[in-house]
Amino acid sequence: MTADQNAAPMFKLYGMTGSGNCEKVRIIADALGLAYEWIEVDVFGGETRRPPFLSDVNPGGQVPAVVFADGRRLTQSNAILLHLDTEGRFVPDDPFRRAEMLSWMFWEQYSHEPTIAVRRARLKFLSMKEDELDPKLKAGGEAALARMNEVLSRQDWLVEGAAPTLADIALHPYTRDAEDGGFALADYPGVQAWLARGASAFGRASSG
Amino acid sequence: MTADQNAAPMFKLYGMTGSGNCEKVRIIADALGLAYEWIEVDVFGGETRRPPFLSDVNPGGQVPAVVFADGRRLTQSNAILLHLDTEGRFVPDDPFRRAEMLSWMFWEQYSHEPTIAVRRARLKFLSMKEDELDPKLKAGGEAALARMNEVLSRQDWLVEGAAPTLADIALHPYTRDAEDGGFALADYPGVQAWLARGASAFGRASSG
Repeated sequence: MTADQNAAPMFKLYGMTGSGNCEKVRIIADALGLAYEWIEVDVFGGETRRPPFLSDVNPGGQVPAVVFADGRRLTQSNAILLHLDTEGRFVPDDPFRRAEMLSWMFWEQYSHEPTIAVRRARLKFLSMKEDELDPKLKAGGEAALARMNEVLSRQDWLVEGAAPTLADIALHPYTRDAEDGGFALADYPGVQAWLARGASAFGRASSG
Repeated sequence: MTADQNAAPMFKLYGMTGSGNCEKVRIIADALGLAYEWIEVDVFGGETRRPPFLSDVNPGGQVPAVVFADGRRLTQSNAILLHLDTEGRFVPDDPFRRAEMLSWMFWEQYSHEPTIAVRRARLKFLSMKEDELDPKLKAGGEAALARMNEVLSRQDWLVEGAAPTLADIALHPYTRDAEDGGFALADYPGVQAWLARGASAFGRASSG
């Protein structure tokens, strides 16, 4: 559960197994060796939409949510990544490259997650059928993967440079699981090669 | 158009008049006195979905997009805000408050813009009727405004402290224009008071 089973957890991580937004927090915590306690939340059972989750964890009703040992709370997966990586191990030193990293992270939440992850959730967790889904989800997801593929066919990581950044971590889980959403990763060889590099650099053994 | 009409523009800002995502970039640029050239883009005419915009400005097909004098390009409104405010005039010094600011900015793009601004765009720019709209847009927008109101009824700015941050700038335009999307701001007095404070601190005279 934590990188150091003997260390006192510095935060509780409320999340749902199978959620890429939650998994990315585990990736950064594991990569940085931060001790945390995972608390499974039954999102589809409505746990995030009622107390005590709403009152004590996140009034915004979303996971992941982090509660630090001193009681302070932080939400939004990508804000959590940026905060946990205090020393900037996955943040470029160059200000413009840092801005590009942030641009990919905002794009992830606006254009990638709402298409690829939402389509996956409807098929995998809500057991909807392909023909019940808004066709815009497929088109938007294909466009997102095509954009990543174009960039990743000419460079190793989303932000040009020798090392992965928080953008690669943020985009790894839901891209890896895109097949669950009906997307064929074989159509995006640049993305596939990047996923393999990410799995080697910071990947977890499972989405749990 | 720029704070200093005589200064050489440090960037071109491609945007659409009436878009809050674009206006927030103008707000920060004006507040910091940065010289820029505004280039109007006909989004609803399809200009963002074909060359030369796709090839030369933003392959992601979205505004705002910034092209700096040296040719470097940056997209995603909130990444642009963070990059332009080099000296952190609207960024808290305290790391946890900075994380809270980022949390609001990611929340804005995930939960506020896709409900309030999308509903506004469909009514105002696409001339759709209320009964043609997905009811989730109204419910999601009301939830977003309620969450802001709860926080803004007990503090002046989204991140606790004496001064506005980039989160207040990011959330100002689309919240101010929420009435265009069928939301009644009078139901959210904390939000209304915060809008007045924002208009006084960094507001522009119009959404243009």
